[in-house]
Amino acid sequence: MSSNKLIATAKANTNIALIKYWGKRDEKLFLPMNSSLSITLNNFHTITTVEFREELKEDKLIWNQAPGSAKELMKISSFLDIIRKEAGASLYANVITENHVPTAAGFASSASGYAALAAAATKAIGLDLSPEGLSKIARQGSGSACRSIYGGFVEWQKGCLEDGSDSFARQILDEKAWNVTILSVMVTAGQKKVSSREGMKRTVESSPFYQGWLDTVGEDMEAAKKAIRNRDFEFLGAVLEGNALKMHATMLGAKPPIIYWESGTLEVIHRIQDLRQEGILTFFTIDAGPNVKVLCEPKNEDKVKQALMGLRSVQKVISCNPGEGVKYLSEHLIEWT
Amino acid sequence: MSSNKLIATAKANTNIALIKYWGKRDEKLFLPMNSSLSITLNNFHTITTVEFREELKEDKLIWNQAPGSAKELMKISSFLDIIRKEAGASLYANVITENHVPTAAGFASSASGYAALAAAATKAIGLDLSPEGLSKIARQGSGSACRSIYGGFVEWQKGCLEDGSDSFARQILDEKAWNVTILSVMVTAGQKKVSSREGMKRTVESSPFYQGWLDTVGEDMEAAKKAIRNRDFEFLGAVLEGNALKMHATMLGAKPPIIYWESGTLEVIHRIQDLRQEGILTFFTIDAGPNVKVLCEPKNEDKVKQALMGLRSVQKVISCNPGEGVKYLSEHLIEWT
Repeated sequence: MSSNKLIATAKANTNIALIKYWGKRDEKLFLPMNSSLSITLNNFHTITTVEFREELKEDKLIWNQAPGSAKELMKISSFLDIIRKEAGASLYANVITENHVPTAAGFASSASGYAALAAAATKAIGLDLSPEGLSKIARQGSGSACRSIYGGFVEWQKGCLEDGSDSFARQILDEKAWNVTILSVMVTAGQKKVSSREGMKRTVESSPFYQGWLDTVGEDMEAAKKAIRNRDFEFLGAVLEGNALKMHATMLGAKPPIIYWESGTLEVIHRIQDLRQEGILTFFTIDAGPNVKVLCEPKNEDKVKQALMGLRSVQKVISCNPGEGVKYLSEHLIEWT
Repeated sequence: MSSNKLIATAKANTNIALIKYWGKRDEKLFLPMNSSLSITLNNFHTITTVEFREELKEDKLIWNQAPGSAKELMKISSFLDIIRKEAGASLYANVITENHVPTAAGFASSASGYAALAAAATKAIGLDLSPEGLSKIARQGSGSACRSIYGGFVEWQKGCLEDGSDSFARQILDEKAWNVTILSVMVTAGQKKVSSREGMKRTVESSPFYQGWLDTVGEDMEAAKKAIRNRDFEFLGAVLEGNALKMHATMLGAKPPIIYWESGTLEVIHRIQDLRQEGILTFFTIDAGPNVKVLCEPKNEDKVKQALMGLRSVQKVISCNPGEGVKYLSEHLIEWT
C-alpha cells in the first residue's frame, strides 16, 4: 500500500446555457452537434472527494451522506474507467459527493457533478491536465460539465474530430469581468415527461426543424460572443432569447412533439416581454423543462424579481451571478480509515 | 336602367384549418406556399347581398346594419374590381353584409365573408362559375375563403402557376359523411400583437424553420386526407396536432420571434393531452392567436367540454360540427329603392 495518499477534493459550480447544447453527434463520447455558450453560476455547486486505494475491490460511492444507488455507482465507475485508462492505472476509488444544487433550484446538477468528479479524480490519480484536458474528460460524464471547469462566460467548441479531442470548453470572460443577474424562476408544473437526453435524441432524429437549428446556431454563437466582449446586455439578451425559443421550436416539430412548457412558463415569458415594454432590459431562456431563467442587469434585479414573484404560477425565484470555475480544496469530505 | 335586377344573396360558413395555410408565395393573388385542409363549420356564417346598379357612382357597403368603414369599403371595392373585370362589366354595387361570426367565437370572419361576397357578387353580375371558379375568386379576397365555398372536409391545392389559375379548393368529404365535434376554446388573453398576415410574412422571410415546414406539410396533407377517407379520428388528430405545433414552431424561429400562445393556451394543450391519457380521443389545433380549437368525437363532446370549462383560464367553449358550403338565398337582405 502506497504511503502517498491518492486523494483530492474539488468544487465545481453549475452553469446555465445562453446558447444551447441541443443534439449529440456521438452519444457515447458526448460530442455535440453544435457549439454552446454558458455562464458558470456562483450559487450552486458540487464538492467531491476521490481517493484511489489499493485494497479496494470496486468503486464506492457516498452521495449526500448516503450510499449511492447501484445505477449511479455504475455511471460513476464507467466515468472513472476513462480516467484510469488515461492514467494507466487500475485502482478503485472511494467517491464522496456533496451536491448543493437542489432540484428545486431548477438547475442541472450533472454539470457541476461531473466537473467536480473529473477534477478530483484526475488530480487524485496524478494526472496533470490543462483546463482544456480536464474539460474534455468532464465532457464524457455529461456534456455541459465541460463548461463548468471555467468561471464566468464559457464557450464549448463542438469540434469536428471523431475522437472528440477538439471538443472542449474555454473561457470567454472571467466571472469578475462582467456582472449580470440570473434569476431562476420556478413555476408550477407536473412531472417532466421526457428527459432532455431523450428530447435531444428524438429531435435530431425526427424534427424537420433540426437542420434550421444547426444552420443558425453558429451565427448565434458569434453574435453572443461579440455581445459579451462588448458587454452589450441588450444584444446578448435578444440573441439568447431567440436561441432558446429556437431550441424549443425544434422539439415542437419532433414526432411525437415535445412540449416542455407549462402555462406558468408562458406567464413568465409574457411578463418579461411586458417589462421590456416598460423599459426594463430583461430576457429569458428556458432549458428542457418548464422553468425559466431570467437575465437582467444587477441594478434591475429587485424590480424584475418583484414582478415575477407577483405572478400566479411562480413558486420561487432564486438569484445568481457569474461564479468561478473548478477549485481544489485542501480539506477532504471524509477521512477514510 | 335595366329591368332585370342584378341582385343575389349568398350565405357562407367559416372554416377551421386542420392542415394550416401558412405563408404566401404571392401577396397580391393570395397564392399560398403550401396546400391546406379544413372543415367548414355549421355555426358561424356570413350572409351578403350584392346588387349592381347602373345609377351608382361608387360601391357602397352596409356592414352589420351600419355603413362600412372607408378602409373596408376600399378592400371590398378592389375585390369587386376582380369580378367586374371577369364579367367585362363596369357597374358599381351595393353590398349588404350580416356577419354571424362573433369575434368572441375565435374564428376568422374573413373566410365566410369573402366566400359569401364572391358568391353573391359573381351571381348578381351574371357570371356562371363552377365551384372551382368561385373558389379561385374567393381566394383573392382572403386565402382561406376559397375553402368556405364547399361544405365538410375541404382541401386547398396550392397550385404552381403564377397566375393562380390552379390554386383553388375542392371537397374531400361532404358535411354529412363524417360527423366530428369542433370546440372553440376561448382563453384569457391580451390584445393580439402581430396580425396573421404579418406573422406569415415575417416567418417566410426570416425563420430558419420555414423550409422544414414546407418540406413536411405535403406529407401531412396526404396523411390527413387518408385519415379522412378512412374516418380514422385518432390518426387525423395526431396529424393535425403535429401540424399546428409545427406552424407555431416556425414562428418561434422568426426574427423577432412571434409567440401567439398565452398561458391559457398551454393549460388547454396539457388538459387535452391528459384527457388522451385518460382514454378520451381528443386533439387540439391553434391558429395565429392564443385560442385553441379542440376536436373530439361527438360521443365525447360533453366530457371534453366539461373538462375544458373547469380550467382557470378558459372563458368560453363553443361547439360546432361540419357545415355546408356556399348557399344562395332567395330573400335579400334589403330592398333598395
